[in-house]
Amino acid sequence: MIEDSFPPLLSEFQVPYRYTVQFTKGIFQIQNPCLRQFLISERKEGTVKKALVVLDEGLVAHHPNLIAEIKTYFQSLDLIVQLTSDIVVVPGGEDCKNDPKLWESLVDAVDTYGIDRHSYIIAIGGGAVLDLVGYVAAVSHRGIRLVRIPTTVLSQNDSGVGVKNGINYKGKKNFLGSFAPPVAVFNDLLFLESLDDRDWRSGMAEAIKVSLIKDKDFFLWIESNAEALRNRNLEKMSYLVHRCAKLHMDHIAKGDPFEFGSSRPLDFGHWAAHKLEYLTEFSLRHGEAVAIGMALDTVYSYQKNLLTEGDRDRILSVLKKLGFAIYHPQLSEKEKTNLYLGLQEFREHLGGRLTIMLLAGIGVAKEVHEIDLNTLASSVDFLADL
Amino acid sequence: MIEDSFPPLLSEFQVPYRYTVQFTKGIFQIQNPCLRQFLISERKEGTVKKALVVLDEGLVAHHPNLIAEIKTYFQSLDLIVQLTSDIVVVPGGEDCKNDPKLWESLVDAVDTYGIDRHSYIIAIGGGAVLDLVGYVAAVSHRGIRLVRIPTTVLSQNDSGVGVKNGINYKGKKNFLGSFAPPVAVFNDLLFLESLDDRDWRSGMAEAIKVSLIKDKDFFLWIESNAEALRNRNLEKMSYLVHRCAKLHMDHIAKGDPFEFGSSRPLDFGHWAAHKLEYLTEFSLRHGEAVAIGMALDTVYSYQKNLLTEGDRDRILSVLKKLGFAIYHPQLSEKEKTNLYLGLQEFREHLGGRLTIMLLAGIGVAKEVHEIDLNTLASSVDFLADL
Repeated sequence: MIEDSFPPLLSEFQVPYRYTVQFTKGIFQIQNPCLRQFLISERKEGTVKKALVVLDEGLVAHHPNLIAEIKTYFQSLDLIVQLTSDIVVVPGGEDCKNDPKLWESLVDAVDTYGIDRHSYIIAIGGGAVLDLVGYVAAVSHRGIRLVRIPTTVLSQNDSGVGVKNGINYKGKKNFLGSFAPPVAVFNDLLFLESLDDRDWRSGMAEAIKVSLIKDKDFFLWIESNAEALRNRNLEKMSYLVHRCAKLHMDHIAKGDPFEFGSSRPLDFGHWAAHKLEYLTEFSLRHGEAVAIGMALDTVYSYQKNLLTEGDRDRILSVLKKLGFAIYHPQLSEKEKTNLYLGLQEFREHLGGRLTIMLLAGIGVAKEVHEIDLNTLASSVDFLADL
Repeated sequence: MIEDSFPPLLSEFQVPYRYTVQFTKGIFQIQNPCLRQFLISERKEGTVKKALVVLDEGLVAHHPNLIAEIKTYFQSLDLIVQLTSDIVVVPGGEDCKNDPKLWESLVDAVDTYGIDRHSYIIAIGGGAVLDLVGYVAAVSHRGIRLVRIPTTVLSQNDSGVGVKNGINYKGKKNFLGSFAPPVAVFNDLLFLESLDDRDWRSGMAEAIKVSLIKDKDFFLWIESNAEALRNRNLEKMSYLVHRCAKLHMDHIAKGDPFEFGSSRPLDFGHWAAHKLEYLTEFSLRHGEAVAIGMALDTVYSYQKNLLTEGDRDRILSVLKKLGFAIYHPQLSEKEKTNLYLGLQEFREHLGGRLTIMLLAGIGVAKEVHEIDLNTLASSVDFLADL
């Protein structure tokens, strides 16, 4: 028997990851030590690493001196890390994830500038740019060291501190991508000041989400600070970002970081959100879509007798106080079929059984594996009539 | 101080991987339990998984009934795993890694057939096809479960049992790719019988390599079985494949599986091999190029007083006994500059400092960080004159 002579070989190992998310203000001010200390800590005798910086166009528009500041900052580091001759600027927002040519041009930049596995790619911008650049870094030379500097509320409290990247493909969100932790993340809170109101607000959706499924106290804090948050109080927002980022990172590290299992329990409100983003051709921000998705699943949870009427109204009220819309015409009667398709696509993206997270209370998540389309339709109607 | 109010957040975790490499004969014979038992062991209540099978064209040419056999094999499994309506056949050999359209067509197949993260992609073929399909699986939906069925000596003893995938881009080998362990590997030794002599032989290069840097006893075994190996003795070859696969897998699991560090100590003979493959437009097989690369670095090791003359000759003699060429005209005087460029590219691909593995004895590896071009040139001349 061949099986006897050549026994099976087992490969079993663990791959360790470790990175910190630092909070700072004015990261490229010459006296700010955060980034410099990190780069110096990684120095290896006798080598000068390269760094390719990729910037979000929207950020540059608000900070016209940023490119010059970055170049000046790195001048004092040139024995440790050398910037490539150019800083690459890419369009921001979800559009950048829809354009395969943009991905290719960044891979070409890696090639042109000779960025190797021990060099850095430093991605600075909103979540979409970080996702795009992260995917480039993950697959070039089988993984280049990625430093993320998220500049929006959403990316600082959620996607930018996590382990995923991705781009859209043939109309499917994040169809291509990978799990690839960064080597460091720097949340520069000053960048939040230049966000427009929609981006300031929409980033809070993930904080509400994580509070609803994990942390009732955090929800209460958001509820009592809703007005200050809406009125752009930076210290309150910084607290929200820090607490949300911590919850998100703990969930990753203590759970199933690369999602080999079958559920993604942080995804409350997301199945409808993903579909809404496409149905509105991304005129909705991700957070705006998530707010609507959470409103829908909150009402659905109530109609399924999981959630009290009081809790339902309290959640919808916080969303509204923060300035979120909780309904969109694309949820309407004639579009419902499209919405239902979203359930199927969500299942396919997650793989395996459909798993939808609902609420059994504020701070109490509950997974279900079926959605009753009649109840879903009446939940939509409830929101339409509010 | 903002840094005090919002302390850094640390993310630290380990991602566990586990897979077995089973050795069998006739994996798709209906009574063969290997693959069936694996798929049954992974079954989840109430779900039927999908499987997309991708086959190497060269293999199909030698096994015209294979597609029918696979379909029959899976019929008895259809409550557990359902094959997609079509089995995809792709051209084999390095060419398949040079064609981005092929990669795209496979991603499209994942989309078309609705292959999700918990479905399987089953890649059957030589190392190049496994690399290509592995890369597709790694980035579609951020990672689809990959089963590898390597069918060549090289893929069964080396690349197919490891953790990498990749495709070439703009003339650079494995420029795009990732580290993504399979969920299972099945080495069907019967497939080796249909290999042509070049593929049979060239796969042994990695076994010689690993014996030279890690396992002198294995080298002695190869030396004393060289004739049987050359004369296509399947049991001897099976032993070689099993022992080489084990050494390769142990190296990965006990070392730095995703190569975050700076060296790749299993890469003896590979820097010149990579370049030679390109210089010969892949008319050289990978193993043929590695054999020449090892001959070159063996002679270089001798010329640098690391290796005795006796060991040098013994190594060159085993390579020749197995039927390998140990010189190629592309190493010649007028091409040396190209070869030197290969050193630079190798450094860039590895990242950080140049690290080249030499021999300080049979079974004794030694890393160096500099290559003396004069000695390299005279090593080339030595091989040219043999």
